[in-house]
Amino acid sequence: MMNILLINPNTSEHVTQRLLEQAQFVVGEQATIHAYTAQTGPAIISSRSENAIALAEMLRLAATHQNGHDVLVLGVSIDTGLMALREMLDIPVVGMAEAALVTAGMLGGKIGCLTLGASMVPVYEELTASYGFASRVSKWRAIEMPSAFSVTDADPQVAQALILASEKLVQQDGSDVIILCGAVLAGYARLVSDAVGVPVVDPMQAAALQALTVARMQPSKQRQGSFARPRNRILSGVDVNIASLYQPSISGA
Amino acid sequence: MMNILLINPNTSEHVTQRLLEQAQFVVGEQATIHAYTAQTGPAIISSRSENAIALAEMLRLAATHQNGHDVLVLGVSIDTGLMALREMLDIPVVGMAEAALVTAGMLGGKIGCLTLGASMVPVYEELTASYGFASRVSKWRAIEMPSAFSVTDADPQVAQALILASEKLVQQDGSDVIILCGAVLAGYARLVSDAVGVPVVDPMQAAALQALTVARMQPSKQRQGSFARPRNRILSGVDVNIASLYQPSISGA
Amino acid sequence: MMNILLINPNTSEHVTQRLLEQAQFVVGEQATIHAYTAQTGPAIISSRSENAIALAEMLRLAATHQNGHDVLVLGVSIDTGLMALREMLDIPVVGMAEAALVTAGMLGGKIGCLTLGASMVPVYEELTASYGFASRVSKWRAIEMPSAFSVTDADPQVAQALILASEKLVQQDGSDVIILCGAVLAGYARLVSDAVGVPVVDPMQAAALQALTVARMQPSKQRQGSFARPRNRILSGVDVNIASLYQPSISGA
Amino acid sequence: MMNILLINPNTSEHVTQRLLEQAQFVVGEQATIHAYTAQTGPAIISSRSENAIALAEMLRLAATHQNGHDVLVLGVSIDTGLMALREMLDIPVVGMAEAALVTAGMLGGKIGCLTLGASMVPVYEELTASYGFASRVSKWRAIEMPSAFSVTDADPQVAQALILASEKLVQQDGSDVIILCGAVLAGYARLVSDAVGVPVVDPMQAAALQALTVARMQPSKQRQGSFARPRNRILSGVDVNIASLYQPSISGA
Amino acid sequence: MMNILLINPNTSEHVTQRLLEQAQFVVGEQATIHAYTAQTGPAIISSRSENAIALAEMLRLAATHQNGHDVLVLGVSIDTGLMALREMLDIPVVGMAEAALVTAGMLGGKIGCLTLGASMVPVYEELTASYGFASRVSKWRAIEMPSAFSVTDADPQVAQALILASEKLVQQDGSDVIILCGAVLAGYARLVSDAVGVPVVDPMQAAALQALTVARMQPSKQRQGSFARPRNRILSGVDVNIASLYQPSISGA
Amino acid sequence: MMNILLINPNTSEHVTQRLLEQAQFVVGEQATIHAYTAQTGPAIISSRSENAIALAEMLRLAATHQNGHDVLVLGVSIDTGLMALREMLDIPVVGMAEAALVTAGMLGGKIGCLTLGASMVPVYEELTASYGFASRVSKWRAIEMPSAFSVTDADPQVAQALILASEKLVQQDGSDVIILCGAVLAGYARLVSDAVGVPVVDPMQAAALQALTVARMQPSKQRQGSFARPRNRILSGVDVNIASLYQPSISGA
Repeated sequence: MMNILLINPNTSEHVTQRLLEQAQFVVGEQATIHAYTAQTGPAIISSRSENAIALAEMLRLAATHQNGHDVLVLGVSIDTGLMALREMLDIPVVGMAEAALVTAGMLGGKIGCLTLGASMVPVYEELTASYGFASRVSKWRAIEMPSAFSVTDADPQVAQALILASEKLVQQDGSDVIILCGAVLAGYARLVSDAVGVPVVDPMQAAALQALTVARMQPSKQRQGSFARPRNRILSGVDVNIASLYQPSISGA
Repeated sequence: MMNILLINPNTSEHVTQRLLEQAQFVVGEQATIHAYTAQTGPAIISSRSENAIALAEMLRLAATHQNGHDVLVLGVSIDTGLMALREMLDIPVVGMAEAALVTAGMLGGKIGCLTLGASMVPVYEELTASYGFASRVSKWRAIEMPSAFSVTDADPQVAQALILASEKLVQQDGSDVIILCGAVLAGYARLVSDAVGVPVVDPMQAAALQALTVARMQPSKQRQGSFARPRNRILSGVDVNIASLYQPSISGA
Repeated sequence: MMNILLINPNTSEHVTQRLLEQAQFVVGEQATIHAYTAQTGPAIISSRSENAIALAEMLRLAATHQNGHDVLVLGVSIDTGLMALREMLDIPVVGMAEAALVTAGMLGGKIGCLTLGASMVPVYEELTASYGFASRVSKWRAIEMPSAFSVTDADPQVAQALILASEKLVQQDGSDVIILCGAVLAGYARLVSDAVGVPVVDPMQAAALQALTVARMQPSKQRQGSFARPRNRILSGVDVNIASLYQPSISGA
Repeated sequence: MMNILLINPNTSEHVTQRLLEQAQFVVGEQATIHAYTAQTGPAIISSRSENAIALAEMLRLAATHQNGHDVLVLGVSIDTGLMALREMLDIPVVGMAEAALVTAGMLGGKIGCLTLGASMVPVYEELTASYGFASRVSKWRAIEMPSAFSVTDADPQVAQALILASEKLVQQDGSDVIILCGAVLAGYARLVSDAVGVPVVDPMQAAALQALTVARMQPSKQRQGSFARPRNRILSGVDVNIASLYQPSISGA
Repeated sequence: MMNILLINPNTSEHVTQRLLEQAQFVVGEQATIHAYTAQTGPAIISSRSENAIALAEMLRLAATHQNGHDVLVLGVSIDTGLMALREMLDIPVVGMAEAALVTAGMLGGKIGCLTLGASMVPVYEELTASYGFASRVSKWRAIEMPSAFSVTDADPQVAQALILASEKLVQQDGSDVIILCGAVLAGYARLVSDAVGVPVVDPMQAAALQALTVARMQPSKQRQGSFARPRNRILSGVDVNIASLYQPSISGA
Repeated sequence: MMNILLINPNTSEHVTQRLLEQAQFVVGEQATIHAYTAQTGPAIISSRSENAIALAEMLRLAATHQNGHDVLVLGVSIDTGLMALREMLDIPVVGMAEAALVTAGMLGGKIGCLTLGASMVPVYEELTASYGFASRVSKWRAIEMPSAFSVTDADPQVAQALILASEKLVQQDGSDVIILCGAVLAGYARLVSDAVGVPVVDPMQAAALQALTVARMQPSKQRQGSFARPRNRILSGVDVNIASLYQPSISGA
């Protein structure tokens, strides 16, 4: 049985629970998931700078808890620190946005993406482009419904707004498959899919399943290139669990 | 437990066995795999036109055997008919090339690709670009070693050639992760990875694991767009299992 | 005088006639055109999978009839099997979509494309991108008018819908030249052009003229690379006219 | 019978003759070609600035001689003023570089380009990209052989250098078809093609044939958009044949 | 103190004055600006062909006046002859469009562009793409307000139209920063910025400031590659200030 | 007179001094530069993860010291936190890599980039692509010369290695202008430029000059979109100078 490490870089415990629920649902008995919530930083990352602020705690929690796990899943739809963590850690790392995009891509041609709040759309677009998916995504759309952040169960009004926006993604933008992006949108995918008639991907479900996939590949850790962690580096005033990763290695590599 | 349908559009039974072995290795007890080998067409697809010739039998086998399966895996590294099958069938379809690319993409930045025989490189490059991965792939390289097609177990000479080419992919082309593309290269991934020090992806392993992933998502079949299969179409002189898919549907959809 | 081979992979004879009429109109006395209609497959290709199903008959007709012709024109707006046929045959091959795009490109900057039925738009977009024309095409638009498929002469209602959509292509999308894509739209180009005030390209006219062009170049058949047809291949259960192309060559080449 | 206007913006009459010979060879009796050579400007355009200097005479000759012709062919491999002339004139305009690229594109996948002198390669690359062909061109290579500019017939040393570079384009760069770019390379295409085993395109032959194609389409002149020539403009100190094109139109259009 | 050469290739003296005013405003006492207005050519460049016609006078003025200046600023929003002048002259050259794009790019992510008159939008889009900024520009929009060309001071109606279009650029197109493109729009940037709440760049201000920047870098003139001016070239019937640049150099370089 | 804030996120004080020297050299008396060095984090950022670790201190120093300054310059060649800081701060922010690219772009066509150590090349390539400069950069090359990190003055061996690599960038890769990327390469630009004959850009010089440019534009801070800093956010355990930026604003904005 696999051990999955799940880290939520927001300090909101209820978000962790919501993500954990979706992850558990799809991995079933194939993995035990250990979830951690940030102790410092933004309650909910809602901008470029809050994402940057949250990074320090993400790094600390990842360095502290990686041992004993087969794979790390980032519990945040903006993949905070994904590439840096792939270099820093000894285990593979899966991000919700990247996992959702690659999974959606295997279910159709053009991917329509839907999130809460227009101000994060450019940030998601930049992330999409960095993964090479700019030409695969038909459009990023956002619904404006701040109340969605406070409810914990599926809300009919949110569901209705998601269905309307998804129909635009399909009929106006030519999407073949849809991603619902944002932790508070967890749990709506099936409902929207049934209404709109195209597959709808829940990013945390995708991330948990892709975590099983990459863990089962048992990939070697890079010893060369930009994903190999350097050794013998001088770092000062940094969390000890992080700093120790850059010490001289005993057995070589 | 899942049921995976594996179709090899080459008429070479020993290739089917080799692919089946890798798929079984990674899915373990999570799925039963039923494998079928083409009855007509090229023994080994080695060009654009042979790939086109092999398509008819791929469509026939897929239409004939999809019932009772959760997902179809195409047992061919050039993803013969992938997009057409996603529209034609009622179950999700996974291709080896696409699965390898998305899985490799979650293990690093730049993906180096290695195959047997230079004449197929442009075809793979076009396929890569069609999935949006042109900017993620560092380079496609080929080794020339026709003997590799006849051996059934790992051959030290082939291994050596793969390691040398992989080191170029890493050191000259900046690859962070490598794909070994081609059914006869199944079984070399671990060996090359240990030698070169970056993750090496076996496309059939990746495809089998991604088949589990997409099957567990239980995606809706498209009812709209270019992946919805049209109904009430007139087809003549076509295999009955195929033709029946285009009949008027009874319950609507 | 040139001999042009025209193959319609749809089984609809009236479509062949309509295409032949346009081709004859522009080549005049410079070529004799021999047209063949598919004996099996979809009556009208309307989706990804029907295009895949139609491929087998296209390959068979091309292999059977290439001798004695200077060039093959594919009589289908989705360029069924274009790249595979370029490798398989000894004569050059011209597709309607590619010919229309390159011809339109020499008449302006941005190319607006118009077809019948929205569900094929993504397929045309993928085709456009594969030819490198993604940045040249301003937009693909579709009119929905199923009746257009049954009429054989220009219909004022269809004409009106095409003119309206073309004006959007020019005024909203910045198109400098327009392509009317789809066999049943043959014959409307002049009318739409006069109304809208930009050049409008008929794909079959473009394909027939480009067939003259490439035939007059008398290009060598590739002996190297991914467009060289391999020899000494094993194919089983395949049409004899196709299979014989892969036999050992007598004189070398 | 068509009337083709051919303008060479270099002041070198022998270049005009060489281009005319290739054009005449392929159009045969289908068109009369009237060729004009620049009276002022660079003897041979060899840089960005010489191309800019040559533009004024190209505009003057085109405006002066367009009447009575069906199409203008630019007799210069860098397509001097192509887009501006398409807007300024009432007849279609064909450029050698664009014509070569689109014709080559219909003969294979990747296009290898070969010219004389490395310093123009970046300029050709920018031109290629502006036509949308960046992803279709495998590589631009140059041979350095200044003597090629003075000979008027095919020279065995030049031929040998072209064959060697073409083999690199095929074997190292994966080219399926080759373009020989530069007026002084006219006449080598067949020889190189026979030696290398892929089609080789002569840009002036391609341009002359594409001129027939676009002339036969009888495209409307744009009345809208960025290719419609504006009227009622104030120009001072400009050649009268040019200036008169911007006068108020009498009959509307 | 720097000496900036400013050349307006339009024959409209009042445009020169308007541009000079903005340039002077931002460079203050750091530079003396010498401005020249075209003596021949279009009063106002409004199309591709007028831009081509204006090029000859731009080249003449630049060659005539470069001596004694540290940098040339092109006083035209379409960067007439920018790349050719960079090769032809001994001093650096700054274009308004390029300077506006790079300056705007340092103030946000997506750049929204606004001009007067839709027919030039495709020309600006091609220019943007040639600089590599296609993915950075959210959209080019145009207002239609011919009266704007005649007023010399900020006009409330023009201001209102610019503000409305800018709000669309921000809210519909996701722009983070805006460029007001066109000499007659000089002077509106602050007003629009205050109203819309994103930075608004005036291209002449940007060009003047970037002229200071590149002049202070004291960049070497290229002696190699496509930006090195060739020597020993034959040019006939060309302005003597231009022709002399291509004479054999005395001291080598 | 301007006030420039310069922050070095490495804890190496001698790097700060080296950067300050270059910045001071080009801004002369036009600005006072206040430089700060990170108190915690990596001595020298040499990998993706060290860059991520250094971000926290960069954010802290920027939030603490922005008041009283006109613009912030990031003293690190990998532009640590650039986009996040543009949103978080009230003053414009300039990064060395972005400033070098845009400045180099105004001096030629293709930009060649040179750094120390191959393992950072992929990270620079990703950064380049994110700014839209992928098509403008000819190639990133690295020299391997660890000793360069310890010397404080120009070293002839380093100079020689830079000149050799730069000549490859020009002659093999077609670069028109070169960037020397890396703080320890400050001071070599003039020497390399004189030797190679193309302009060579020092990133800190470029950044300091671009800081003057953007500060003189006096751009409005975004009040909308993904670069507007959100208010009324909950952050816990975060530096007080950072946290206070997310408090409710008093006067609105």
